[in-house]
Amino acid sequence: MRLPDRVVLRDVSPRDGLQSEPVTLSTERKLELIDGLAHAGVSRIEAVSVVHPKLVPQLADAEAVMANLTRRAYCRYAVLVPNIKGAQRAVTMNPDEITVFLSASETHNWKNVHRSITDSLQELQTVCDMSRAHHVPPSAVIVASFGCPYEGEVPTSVVVDLAYRLFGMGVREITLGDTVGVANPKKVQAIFSQLRQDIPGLNLGGHFHDNRGTALVNMLAAIDVGITLFDTALGGIGGSPFSPGAGGNLATEDAVYMLEESGVATGINLEALLALGDRLEEWVGHPLPSRVRRARGRMVPVGPEGYVHD
Amino acid sequence: MRLPDRVVLRDVSPRDGLQSEPVTLSTERKLELIDGLAHAGVSRIEAVSVVHPKLVPQLADAEAVMANLTRRAYCRYAVLVPNIKGAQRAVTMNPDEITVFLSASETHNWKNVHRSITDSLQELQTVCDMSRAHHVPPSAVIVASFGCPYEGEVPTSVVVDLAYRLFGMGVREITLGDTVGVANPKKVQAIFSQLRQDIPGLNLGGHFHDNRGTALVNMLAAIDVGITLFDTALGGIGGSPFSPGAGGNLATEDAVYMLEESGVATGINLEALLALGDRLEEWVGHPLPSRVRRARGRMVPVGPEGYVHD
Repeated sequence: MRLPDRVVLRDVSPRDGLQSEPVTLSTERKLELIDGLAHAGVSRIEAVSVVHPKLVPQLADAEAVMANLTRRAYCRYAVLVPNIKGAQRAVTMNPDEITVFLSASETHNWKNVHRSITDSLQELQTVCDMSRAHHVPPSAVIVASFGCPYEGEVPTSVVVDLAYRLFGMGVREITLGDTVGVANPKKVQAIFSQLRQDIPGLNLGGHFHDNRGTALVNMLAAIDVGITLFDTALGGIGGSPFSPGAGGNLATEDAVYMLEESGVATGINLEALLALGDRLEEWVGHPLPSRVRRARGRMVPVGPEGYVHD
Repeated sequence: MRLPDRVVLRDVSPRDGLQSEPVTLSTERKLELIDGLAHAGVSRIEAVSVVHPKLVPQLADAEAVMANLTRRAYCRYAVLVPNIKGAQRAVTMNPDEITVFLSASETHNWKNVHRSITDSLQELQTVCDMSRAHHVPPSAVIVASFGCPYEGEVPTSVVVDLAYRLFGMGVREITLGDTVGVANPKKVQAIFSQLRQDIPGLNLGGHFHDNRGTALVNMLAAIDVGITLFDTALGGIGGSPFSPGAGGNLATEDAVYMLEESGVATGINLEALLALGDRLEEWVGHPLPSRVRRARGRMVPVGPEGYVHD
């Protein structure tokens, strides 16, 4: 197994996380969350999205959030952009990067952004052109890369083809999303290995949801084939708002703990994440799913004397 | 990453799991659990322990359980034995194997079995001799192999030395226990690789608790260096009874799901495990921590239309 010296974690809790919570945080709290992440050492943060406020009212204050950020030099703040209209808003916010996305399955793309994959690709071309015209590098996510809840299996060839198309429109960073947590180590290694072989010069990332407890193991499998960029969310929030705790993102705390303990640097301070998680937990009003959070870090005392452990 | 064709899971829920539950199941229900596991295809089950009933009242009916088992030819039923007194009980039960254990840390061994490691080794020699005299192969667990809650780091050399000592007394199978869930992939690979190199002919297993959500990733890391035997527990029960859900064993369902999806055969039927888990959940009176259980298997529907997923 190959373990690199360093892995980059992009925390998506302010966007992918908060959009799944029934409560809407105030702009002030969002800023506290984002700056808390940066303060803990997170170097990439998906700060906001510019999805229509009717669809995702929790993130309606994107402009206010981006305008009032304490920008740290070592941190890149991203805006998630679903379409051209969103891009027009995003470029006014001075983001460090713009994240675009489309699904690897036709049905999922229709349900998600109400258009075909072909139409999405055309729209993404315009968005990427706008992004670069403002000197902002676009980063793409291929959603449902490892399986679709409507169509089931997603052929690797479909993902590779989409990656080629995105590369052709100038995208140099693509993240594969395991939207409903159905990836497994074997499939993860197969897809990433093929993409690395087929499209050298493409920076690849993994975005694993934890519906079946496999997010961490899929990250390790991806690391083993050379991937060093992963989306995570503070506390493991995110995913479907209808099954809290069951389908969140890989928790940033859990990724940091496992990596740092294995000698892989993340640049992120675990204690600072745990403290920030205390505040987030209070704000969202329920326990966060992160496992390391529940264990409060590295070591806990065992049970009473005389209790048989093994 | 190396993935084998097959991995053997030893389900320890009837012992390591139930001893951590505040409720005591009836003998009848224990038999239903054990036979349900075998029926699902589990080929090794830690069925009972013969610890003093005052210490672990939940497992006081060990004789009745072992006497009334429906023995399946493909399944091996183990008895966990803490000392010579226990071995005297165990050999009357006609077990297929006897599991012995000691800790890799002096303090943990004192707290756990009230004697020094040196005294434990001496006692284990007698237990192993008794076991073999009854044609029952002993299997050993080195508890706290990856870290001790009292002493902290456990040097690899200590674990290797204990493994040598056990090998010297005729033990041919040793499982390394991550008692409080502090193992990490790097350490797992380092210890198992060294043991495989130093003591060829020794069958090695991993027993990972999930306090920090790392049980599955540690299993994968061990598999990558050639380990193919793992302890798991139905539903992920086990661990400290004072932090339910937080420190259980690797859930058998979660291991089976990840392995089978990755093309590694376990011989175990996931649907049968989920159905058996329904009953166990009812008996213990609280949700089981298994993640695959919460997702009810392979695929779940996503949120409502128009909801932005990635």
